[in-house]
Amino acid sequence: MTPGEFRRRGREVIDWIADNMEWVEELPVLSRVEPGEVRRRLPPSPPGRGEPFEAVLRDLDEIILPGITHWQSPNFFAYFPTNASGPAILGDLVSSGLGVQGMLWPTSPACTELETHVLDWMVEILGLPDRFRSSGRGGGVIQDTASSAALCALLAARERARGRSGTLTAYASEEAHSSIEKAVGIAGVGTANLRRVGVDETRALDPADLERRIEAEEAEGRAPFFVTATVGTTSSNAMDPLRAVGEICRRHDAWFHVDAAMSGTAALCPEFRHHQDGLELADSYCVNPHKWMFTNFDCDCFFVADRAPLLRALSILPEYLRNRATESGAVIDYHDWQVPLGRRFRALKLWFVIRHYGVEGLRYHVRRHVELARGFAARVEAHPDFELAAPVPLNLVCFRHRDGDEKNRAIPDRVNASGKAFLTHTKLDGRFTLRMSIGQTWTEERHVEGAWRAILEA
Amino acid sequence: MTPGEFRRRGREVIDWIADNMEWVEELPVLSRVEPGEVRRRLPPSPPGRGEPFEAVLRDLDEIILPGITHWQSPNFFAYFPTNASGPAILGDLVSSGLGVQGMLWPTSPACTELETHVLDWMVEILGLPDRFRSSGRGGGVIQDTASSAALCALLAARERARGRSGTLTAYASEEAHSSIEKAVGIAGVGTANLRRVGVDETRALDPADLERRIEAEEAEGRAPFFVTATVGTTSSNAMDPLRAVGEICRRHDAWFHVDAAMSGTAALCPEFRHHQDGLELADSYCVNPHKWMFTNFDCDCFFVADRAPLLRALSILPEYLRNRATESGAVIDYHDWQVPLGRRFRALKLWFVIRHYGVEGLRYHVRRHVELARGFAARVEAHPDFELAAPVPLNLVCFRHRDGDEKNRAIPDRVNASGKAFLTHTKLDGRFTLRMSIGQTWTEERHVEGAWRAILEA
Repeated sequence: MTPGEFRRRGREVIDWIADNMEWVEELPVLSRVEPGEVRRRLPPSPPGRGEPFEAVLRDLDEIILPGITHWQSPNFFAYFPTNASGPAILGDLVSSGLGVQGMLWPTSPACTELETHVLDWMVEILGLPDRFRSSGRGGGVIQDTASSAALCALLAARERARGRSGTLTAYASEEAHSSIEKAVGIAGVGTANLRRVGVDETRALDPADLERRIEAEEAEGRAPFFVTATVGTTSSNAMDPLRAVGEICRRHDAWFHVDAAMSGTAALCPEFRHHQDGLELADSYCVNPHKWMFTNFDCDCFFVADRAPLLRALSILPEYLRNRATESGAVIDYHDWQVPLGRRFRALKLWFVIRHYGVEGLRYHVRRHVELARGFAARVEAHPDFELAAPVPLNLVCFRHRDGDEKNRAIPDRVNASGKAFLTHTKLDGRFTLRMSIGQTWTEERHVEGAWRAILEA
Repeated sequence: MTPGEFRRRGREVIDWIADNMEWVEELPVLSRVEPGEVRRRLPPSPPGRGEPFEAVLRDLDEIILPGITHWQSPNFFAYFPTNASGPAILGDLVSSGLGVQGMLWPTSPACTELETHVLDWMVEILGLPDRFRSSGRGGGVIQDTASSAALCALLAARERARGRSGTLTAYASEEAHSSIEKAVGIAGVGTANLRRVGVDETRALDPADLERRIEAEEAEGRAPFFVTATVGTTSSNAMDPLRAVGEICRRHDAWFHVDAAMSGTAALCPEFRHHQDGLELADSYCVNPHKWMFTNFDCDCFFVADRAPLLRALSILPEYLRNRATESGAVIDYHDWQVPLGRRFRALKLWFVIRHYGVEGLRYHVRRHVELARGFAARVEAHPDFELAAPVPLNLVCFRHRDGDEKNRAIPDRVNASGKAFLTHTKLDGRFTLRMSIGQTWTEERHVEGAWRAILEA
C-alpha cells in the first residue's frame, strides 16, 4: 500500500470509526452471535492474491461488527470500563505508524523519555508519593495490564527476599484480583503458598487477620515476602486499608504491592485521594489508564519505589543489544522493567490524552461518573424491591432484587438480551449480585436512566 | 473529542503518517539526540486545561520525531526488522477504535473467533503441522512477543512435568534468545537449571551434545523437562536441527518448544520450509508476524499441539467472569492462554495484512528480501577486505572487515552517525561482527547498495 493509497484508505477507516462512535449507542451492547457464527462466515483458506480494501471493510461491517460486544457504548455497564477517547486512538495510531521498538534507549530515545516523563506526570496528577518518581531510586513504566504489573512486583519481591529462609509466602485478601493468584502460580511460588486474608463487612482486607497469619507463619518458619492490597476490588470496589497493611509489611519485611488498576484514576480528584492514604508505604503500585482514564487498551502504569530489585529480577543484556548509551548508565532501558523484550510506544496515547483533556478535564469526567453512580445508587435505595449490596465509594454499584438469586439471575439475562445495556454479576455473601459499573467515556445521565428502566422492566 | 472533531483530527494524523512514510527514507535512521534531550524539551508539569490538538501535533514534529530511531526506514538494517505496512496500521487503528476486550468469548466473540481463524490460516500458509490447528487438541493464540510465548511454553511444560522427581532442568543452545533465560528465571525454575548446549560450526544446536547432557543429568536424578530450538537465531540466524532435537525430546519426555520468531515467516515460501523440517515433533511453536510479515508490533503467533497443559497452567475463573458460553465448553476464552487477563483485538491487523497482500504477495516480498541479502553477501565475498562470518540462510548477513575488532567497531559507528543506514553488531567466535538484517517493508536494492557504499566509505 503506497503512502497515497494509505491516505485514502486511512480516511475511510477514520470515517468508519467516527461513524461507529456516532451509532454505537443504538447497537445492541452485548453481541448476539452464537458460538461459531463468525467463523462460519469466514472463508476456510486465505486468499492467494491480494484483495481490494473495499472487500475487507465490507466484511468488517458484515461479519465482524455483529460479533462485537461494544465496550465503547455509553450503555456498557459490565465488568469494568475500558474506556477510549479520540485523542487516545490517535496517539495509538501515531504509535502504529512510527512502528518503533522501545526496548532500549537508542532504539528510540523519545519512546523511553516520553514514557518516563509522562509517568512522572502521573505521579504529580494522581498525588502519588514522590518515591515513585524517576528522579530518585524508583520510577514508572507502562505495562500491558495490571496482571503483568502484579507479576513484575512479585518477581521483584522474590528477588529482594533471596536468601531468606523458609517457604516464600504471599498474602492477598479473599477479594483480590485473580491476577495475583495467576502471578504466584507463574512465578513458581505456588498457589498453595498464597494466603487469602479475611475481609471486613465492606469486603476490605482485615489487617488484624493479615498480621495474625503472618506472625503465625513466621513462627512456623515461613517467609512472608509479598502482600497485595487493592484500591477498588473487582467484585465490589472495596478499598483495602493501605496504611495499616503497609505498616504490617514494614514490620515483617514484606514487599507491599498496591493494585489500584480500577480506582487509582479517582486520585486525579483530591477529594478521592483518601482511598490511597498510606500509599507512601508501598513498594509498588499500579493504575490502569486503559480502564477509567480515557486511554485505550493497553496501558497500565506500574511504579516502584526502588527499581534495583526489579532490574535484578528482569535484566539480561546479550551482546547483540549492547550499546554505548546503556553502558554509560545514563539512560533507562525499559526491557529490563518487563517480561517481554520488545515494546510499543505506548506513552504517546497517554500523552495525547493528558494534553487533550488537561488535568481539569480528566477530573471533570471522573467526577461525573462518580455522580452518575451515586445517582443510580440513590434510585436503588429508593426502590422498595431493590437493595444495595455493598458501599458505593466511587463508580461501581452492587445491588440486588430482594426476591433472591433466581430473580437476580433473570435480570441481566433480560437486560443484556434487550441490547439496551450490558451489565454483569458477582457473588457477595454467597448471593447473586448485580454490578452497575459506570465509566465509559460517553455515558450520560440518560444512559444510566435507560439502564435502570431496562432493569425495572426485566 | 466529538466524532466530528475525530474525523478532522484523524485525517491530519493519517496525513502525518503518510508524510512520514514518504520522507522517512531521507531522515537519519538512528536518532541523534543525547540522553535527556527529549525530556528537557517537555514541560515539567502537565497542563491544567486541555490544549489544542495543533499543539500536540507540533510537539510531535519538534520534540518526538528527532528522538525517533526509524525502524520503518528502508535504510534500517539493525537488530531484526519490525516491519509495518499500511493495511496493518489500519487494522490496528480499527482495533483501537472498537476498543474491545477479548479476554472471554462473550466480551467480543469476533475478537476470539477471528483470532482462532487467522491462526488456522497461519498453519496453512506456513505449512505448519496440522496438530497446531484449533480443530484438534491444539491451537494458536496471539501473544505480544516471543518472550511471552516462551514463558507460556515453559509454564505448560512445567505443568506437564508436575509430579516428576528431580530438579526441573531446561535446555537451549548457547545461541538461543535471551528470552529463554528470562522465562526460566521468571517461572522460578532458576537460571542455574538452564543448560546452554553446544553448537556446531554454523552455530546450530549440536544434538549429540544435547542428548549427552540430558542422559548424564537424568542419571544424576535431574528431570530434563524443556528444550528450545531456534529457527533463525538472533545473533547469526543459525538454524537448529528440529528433527534431531525433537526425537531426543520424545525419547526423554521433554517439552519441545520451537522459537521461529524471526525466520518462521520464511516458511510462507515452500523452498524455505526445509529449515523447519521435523516441526511435527514440537509441542509448541512461535513466529512473529511483527518482525517480517508486515504486521506492526505487537503480534506473535504462538501454537501448541495440546492446549490442555497450557490451560491447566494459566486458567483461573473468578465469579465475576463466569458466563454461559464459557460454561458450555463450546468457546475459547483466550485469557486462559496468556499471562495478562485483558487482551486487545490483535487479529484484525494480521487479517488485514493477509487479505491485502494475499499469500502470493507475502511470498513475493519475503523472497525479495532473501535475494537482497544474498546479493549483499555476494558483495562481501567479492571484496578483498571483507569476509562473511556465518552462513546466510535467509535475510541476515553476518560479516566483518579482515583487519580485526577495532576496524569493525569503527564501521557501524561511522555508518550510523552518517544517518544513511543503521546496522548493529554481534560477537561470533569472540570476534566483533557486523550484522546486515534485511526485512523492512520498503527496502529495495538501492537501499542495500547505499548501505554497502556507506560501509566502504567508513
